[in-house]
Amino acid sequence: MPHTLYITPGSGNSFKPALVLRQTGRACTFIALDVLAGQTRQADFLGINPRGQVPYLVCDDGRSVGESNAIAWLLAEGSSLMPSDPVARAQAVQWMIFEQTALEPFISLARFYTLVMPALRAAHEADLPRWLEAGERGLALLDRHLAGRAFITDHGYSVADIAVYGYTHLAGEGGFNLAAYPAVQAWLQRVAAAPGYADIHTLLAGRPA
Amino acid sequence: MPHTLYITPGSGNSFKPALVLRQTGRACTFIALDVLAGQTRQADFLGINPRGQVPYLVCDDGRSVGESNAIAWLLAEGSSLMPSDPVARAQAVQWMIFEQTALEPFISLARFYTLVMPALRAAHEADLPRWLEAGERGLALLDRHLAGRAFITDHGYSVADIAVYGYTHLAGEGGFNLAAYPAVQAWLQRVAAAPGYADIHTLLAGRPA
Repeated sequence: MPHTLYITPGSGNSFKPALVLRQTGRACTFIALDVLAGQTRQADFLGINPRGQVPYLVCDDGRSVGESNAIAWLLAEGSSLMPSDPVARAQAVQWMIFEQTALEPFISLARFYTLVMPALRAAHEADLPRWLEAGERGLALLDRHLAGRAFITDHGYSVADIAVYGYTHLAGEGGFNLAAYPAVQAWLQRVAAAPGYADIHTLLAGRPA
Repeated sequence: MPHTLYITPGSGNSFKPALVLRQTGRACTFIALDVLAGQTRQADFLGINPRGQVPYLVCDDGRSVGESNAIAWLLAEGSSLMPSDPVARAQAVQWMIFEQTALEPFISLARFYTLVMPALRAAHEADLPRWLEAGERGLALLDRHLAGRAFITDHGYSVADIAVYGYTHLAGEGGFNLAAYPAVQAWLQRVAAAPGYADIHTLLAGRPA
């Protein structure tokens, strides 16, 4: 029995484990939930994940893993996407935490109220400048890290790149100007050129919701 | 040459790698910086860590690792503190990210303006209820997870417990009522009873700043 991955179309977080699965060739059952229709807040899904968040992985042995970067980590185990060196592995954990604290909270919110729910944007006009400023601080630190480097860790292309790429490559949809971060832009192109890469729409949007 | 760990006394984040070092018996050079005196914002430390944050680890080979939980992860490699099973390892990553997104940001800020810098508390009176409410949501989720479990992952006592314990055990100093979370309280006592445990003052405050 394969693992079961709960995702939602359009989500940069759901995209991460989907891309790991694609690039490792591993089988997994996908179940797409419609967050906007409230499917992640319904009792049947809350019985599976009390936090009501996707992506969420239920393993073949019944155990489960939450947090997009942790799911990507598990699915990358035993593949070339997992750094083999302990320091590079720790740096992967470091940048996964950076992504969830310094990039994703701001990029995903700015994108949500710009691209996904523009009708609610007016209610967050006071928050948007703060999200853009904080996200730009994160992008500037990422740009500094990637200057002169090919990938996030010394391992080469890894699960850490997929984790950081998940929302960073969607930042333009939230109103960020990625042209201001040339090292980030060059790295985004390297990730998109990795063998087996497929974009978020190909990997998620075709799934039944 | 051992690794070099930059820490600051009193920090729940600096405490995490210090406790891993204590419980694994590994050697490490400690350098204590006084954050309140601005030592982490001075050019010499910014040349080491452009983000200006502690804890920060400079490895014996010159590579470096930031983020308290990633440093703890690296220092736990090869010891019984690192989950041996891939699912438990991914769950450790999951709860390390949870700690940095749903607990630490709120507990550390509430504690800072209550315990460390009460003179600045008045300037954050409007933020404090929001931090307390968000931190309580995180503590409630942690309590639900720990009900009927001994430790964060199925591995038994691990680096994930140390990561989550770092600020959770200091929550009372930020005005949180830990008595409302009985599973968390019982787990805090189990962590404090683990072999080789020493408290934050013993491990950090005795270091020269």
